[in-house]
Amino acid sequence: MKIVCIGSGNVATHFSNAFKSAGSELVQIWSKNPEHAAELAIKTGAKPIADLKEIDNNADVYLIAVKDDAIEEVIAQLSAVKGMIVHTSGATDIDVFPATIAKYGVLYPLQTFSKHKAIDFNQVPLCIEAKDEEILKSLKSIALMLSPLVYEVNSEKRRILHLSAVFACNFVNHLYTLSNEILQRNELDFEILRPLIMETAEKVQNAFPVDVQTGPAIRNDEQTITKHKELLSNMPELKDIYETLSKSIKKTH
Amino acid sequence: MKIVCIGSGNVATHFSNAFKSAGSELVQIWSKNPEHAAELAIKTGAKPIADLKEIDNNADVYLIAVKDDAIEEVIAQLSAVKGMIVHTSGATDIDVFPATIAKYGVLYPLQTFSKHKAIDFNQVPLCIEAKDEEILKSLKSIALMLSPLVYEVNSEKRRILHLSAVFACNFVNHLYTLSNEILQRNELDFEILRPLIMETAEKVQNAFPVDVQTGPAIRNDEQTITKHKELLSNMPELKDIYETLSKSIKKTH
Repeated sequence: MKIVCIGSGNVATHFSNAFKSAGSELVQIWSKNPEHAAELAIKTGAKPIADLKEIDNNADVYLIAVKDDAIEEVIAQLSAVKGMIVHTSGATDIDVFPATIAKYGVLYPLQTFSKHKAIDFNQVPLCIEAKDEEILKSLKSIALMLSPLVYEVNSEKRRILHLSAVFACNFVNHLYTLSNEILQRNELDFEILRPLIMETAEKVQNAFPVDVQTGPAIRNDEQTITKHKELLSNMPELKDIYETLSKSIKKTH
Repeated sequence: MKIVCIGSGNVATHFSNAFKSAGSELVQIWSKNPEHAAELAIKTGAKPIADLKEIDNNADVYLIAVKDDAIEEVIAQLSAVKGMIVHTSGATDIDVFPATIAKYGVLYPLQTFSKHKAIDFNQVPLCIEAKDEEILKSLKSIALMLSPLVYEVNSEKRRILHLSAVFACNFVNHLYTLSNEILQRNELDFEILRPLIMETAEKVQNAFPVDVQTGPAIRNDEQTITKHKELLSNMPELKDIYETLSKSIKKTH
């Protein structure tokens, strides 16, 4: 199978590697930054292109992995391609594709990708949606080459998944950042917290988080909560977050 | 080494198992709930006791793993014991021990324990503090029997660690709960989010969270943020948390 990858960021990089590992041929990589395209092209054996006019119209899949607000513009330049065009965005509906395009779909990876961290693509949930049933069927077989975790999800539900991922990933990472801020201010090393962070994530792999909540708020341990708020008196923003989340825990339980 | 365990909850259970695995003898388990004491005693080969007056005064270590507000009361009943008394609380200072006690210290596990999930104690950071240098030295060798991750931490810093753990564990788990709430309202399964949760925790095992932050807030993607707030319009509490944390991410970066 011949793949053209449009984009050269984290999502583009990890998809390109996954397609290559699955035995597909990366024919071209496009990026608005020619150096980025060249860098990813070297790694994957593809040809870097700097202009979408140079695109090979005979590939099987055109994977769009660019910023959300650039997707529409990219699609407008792909009117002559014969293969299936897919975007990879959680927050972009399928109707970003005009009906004039023959084969299109969405291949949204519900995962967080980092430039310098390899990922086991077998653990990446892939959410698929397509123009029609037939295209969905072929998109599904393409997705299954990359990961066994393939889910059919329409645009409305994909938006919801993306939103819930903001809570479970982006906001969670920010809480890690805040806890490190507290440690640093007191000359303590983040290293000591890492096993707790792993265990907290592992606990909910076989349980629902609501059933494994711990800490002072769920115990209504007002004495500890008061002490913690005192410790945060010189960090008003963190104190506010502490109060908001403690209140929310009490309300949930 | 002979251990008496005072308490029968999650911390008491995991410590008892760890001591047993390390070759120590669990001689007695006390709990204010005799059934709980009996249950843990059967598993560890200890004798359950219902009254602290029955305590064996000749053990080497008396591990207090009861609720924070019961620690002082328990200590008051241990005046005749000859071994080292340690409490396991993150939020309780070492000065909860009266100076009349010969050997005392703190053995605080910076980890979250669940009743039905086994834990690799080799991955549990143990924070130790003791009455004097000599006792600290023996407490350190005891702690090293259980885990290689032993840190000397005074009461002031232990309070800080406990506070940062509330952010990195308790609040994080609550964000998992909120993301599941969003999914459930829309008939989506939490299963699909679990790989993302693991990867988010794994990413910070070899990086600082501030360096791997992703999501709409750090990208200043106002279009997506507005869409998300609309999706949360019927969940005002979650909308409030979304706004608070997005604002905090922008401020940090």
